[in-house]
Amino acid sequence: MALISPSRRLRRTPFSDGVEAAGVKAYTVYNHMLLPTVFESVEADYHHLKKHVQIWDVSVERQVELRGPDAARLMQMLTPRDLRGMLPGRCFYVPIVDETGGMLNDPVAVKLAEDRWWISIADSDLLLWVKGIANGYRLDVLVDEPDVSPLAIQGPKADELMARVFGETIRDIRFFRFGLFQFEGRDLVIARSGYSKQGGFEIYVQGSDIAMPIWNTLFAAGEDLNVRAGCPNAIERIEGGLLSYGNDMTDDNTPHECGLGRFCDTQTAIGCIGRDALLRVSKEGPVQQVQAITIDGDPVPPCDRVWPLFAQGRRVGQVTSAIWSPDYSTNVAIGMVRMTHWDSGTKLEVETPAGRRSATVQPGFWA
Amino acid sequence: MALISPSRRLRRTPFSDGVEAAGVKAYTVYNHMLLPTVFESVEADYHHLKKHVQIWDVSVERQVELRGPDAARLMQMLTPRDLRGMLPGRCFYVPIVDETGGMLNDPVAVKLAEDRWWISIADSDLLLWVKGIANGYRLDVLVDEPDVSPLAIQGPKADELMARVFGETIRDIRFFRFGLFQFEGRDLVIARSGYSKQGGFEIYVQGSDIAMPIWNTLFAAGEDLNVRAGCPNAIERIEGGLLSYGNDMTDDNTPHECGLGRFCDTQTAIGCIGRDALLRVSKEGPVQQVQAITIDGDPVPPCDRVWPLFAQGRRVGQVTSAIWSPDYSTNVAIGMVRMTHWDSGTKLEVETPAGRRSATVQPGFWA
Repeated sequence: MALISPSRRLRRTPFSDGVEAAGVKAYTVYNHMLLPTVFESVEADYHHLKKHVQIWDVSVERQVELRGPDAARLMQMLTPRDLRGMLPGRCFYVPIVDETGGMLNDPVAVKLAEDRWWISIADSDLLLWVKGIANGYRLDVLVDEPDVSPLAIQGPKADELMARVFGETIRDIRFFRFGLFQFEGRDLVIARSGYSKQGGFEIYVQGSDIAMPIWNTLFAAGEDLNVRAGCPNAIERIEGGLLSYGNDMTDDNTPHECGLGRFCDTQTAIGCIGRDALLRVSKEGPVQQVQAITIDGDPVPPCDRVWPLFAQGRRVGQVTSAIWSPDYSTNVAIGMVRMTHWDSGTKLEVETPAGRRSATVQPGFWA
Repeated sequence: MALISPSRRLRRTPFSDGVEAAGVKAYTVYNHMLLPTVFESVEADYHHLKKHVQIWDVSVERQVELRGPDAARLMQMLTPRDLRGMLPGRCFYVPIVDETGGMLNDPVAVKLAEDRWWISIADSDLLLWVKGIANGYRLDVLVDEPDVSPLAIQGPKADELMARVFGETIRDIRFFRFGLFQFEGRDLVIARSGYSKQGGFEIYVQGSDIAMPIWNTLFAAGEDLNVRAGCPNAIERIEGGLLSYGNDMTDDNTPHECGLGRFCDTQTAIGCIGRDALLRVSKEGPVQQVQAITIDGDPVPPCDRVWPLFAQGRRVGQVTSAIWSPDYSTNVAIGMVRMTHWDSGTKLEVETPAGRRSATVQPGFWA
């Protein structure tokens, strides 16, 4: 593996000092910002995440803030998910599509108030799309990136750790809901959410000045819980079927291809820019779709490009994420497979840098 | 320095196999794609670039293609530079601004025809802004990212190498003009341009399938010219005052602050979305501006965040790029300085990770 060259353009986060002190070994870049990928090792981090509690610097989940009388209207223009029933205090996972129905991002929308939203984004400059739309349609709304850096607390002991710092009532937050909690006199949005299947919270840290105080308080409170610095874990997220924008989907794909059809209310999401384009696919269904796949043999090398999938010599899809799973003792993978070959149990072949391997479409993800 | 974790999301380029075979040691990420930063060492690469010729994989300069009857109108909406006099066959460096006059990108616009343009972008998803504007204003134009990956040939022997492969007429291309040249029966846009002050060309390689053939042909033709794989060089680009979007400017800055006022025809660039916002600053001038700065003492550490500039204890700006220059035997830097302290020769202090250093505003860049 090559080194990463530091520069201001690869932005540090308000938690970077803590991340470095914790011994980060590798990074990726996400929304022009550093995202840790390895502390002890991907496998050691994985085992720890499933047993204990980790604190993740996910500042890279930048927020796009919509504020003003047209905020809700603009939000609905961005997504085929019907937002009419969404109340303040809720988080919705929302596919964002362009006028062709192609995925531009798969963020979590946080409704703070009728006229104030945060979009907690995956890795694309969604801010530019939203600003362009707001400008082009002359909407009465302010769109910008506020000084908000999410910190995720993930793992089975997350509730215990958070209760120690923010009080017992934090246990009552339901999945994808948020509440306001105080830290040093400041109100913080804290949601039950996060990019793992181990449970936990995301603290929307507003104001870089309180970032390290929160980080340090959490570590101090969790010493006997074996709390560690962590990060989204490649093995755990593939086992859990958590898609990654840019890896498992791009603007070439519709939400339906990504298995996100249940988040598309194409009939009723009036105003959505991609609605016309999605009407047909929502009626007939996609011709290819994201699937869980196992790959036989030894641990595969890092999946840094698409690996073509074949059946009887014909290309029928591609693997986009793959890694060895210690808990399932096989290579777990996410791929896009054509409908002719997507039934559970279908045997395929995948071209990896380590040679051609047999692969099998699974009935679902592992966790 | 930490490692970089590979994934499909950090896209490889059509030249990556060649880059790896040439022994790349470090990368940055730019437009969600791998950009080499070091081969032998930053200093060795620098000395070689100034003496010989290098081949750079700058595929990260992704193209935004505008095609259709409204292409020219859309292009003018994006920039305060007056494009009326621009003929096909020309390249223009164009600040791209939002409705507040904030820089969204500083690309090179390539005019292929009246109704067909490429925007060769710096590190932001400009595609999303352009698509949003085209959609919001209901323009009759297709906007997408074509399969075009620029390959730069830079250094004093660039003309000789290119003439051997593409013929003697390539020497006649004038600065920021382009011509069409054949390679294996395919027409290629080749411009006299590039992100160094050593002279050279950029080949807009259209079609990933011919990328490695071109790469290999150039290396074979340049053996006796001491041709090497290279990349934009941090030392050479700071000496030359070549700004880097995301490092030396962000959407907080106007073009005038970036010293790009000469590319703004705010009076006549009718249609530019940021025109209203820029009218005042273009009349009165900016209150801070990019300057060349020297920093005294030993070689500074990597500049991975802004370094505040002070005068008599008051903050008067920030350094955004800095590195030791072997040829000028000082630390060369780019920074944003307030008008009260931007006169050449002004003594300042800069807070670096290696302590506070004295710094001096220079009359201009070094090369």
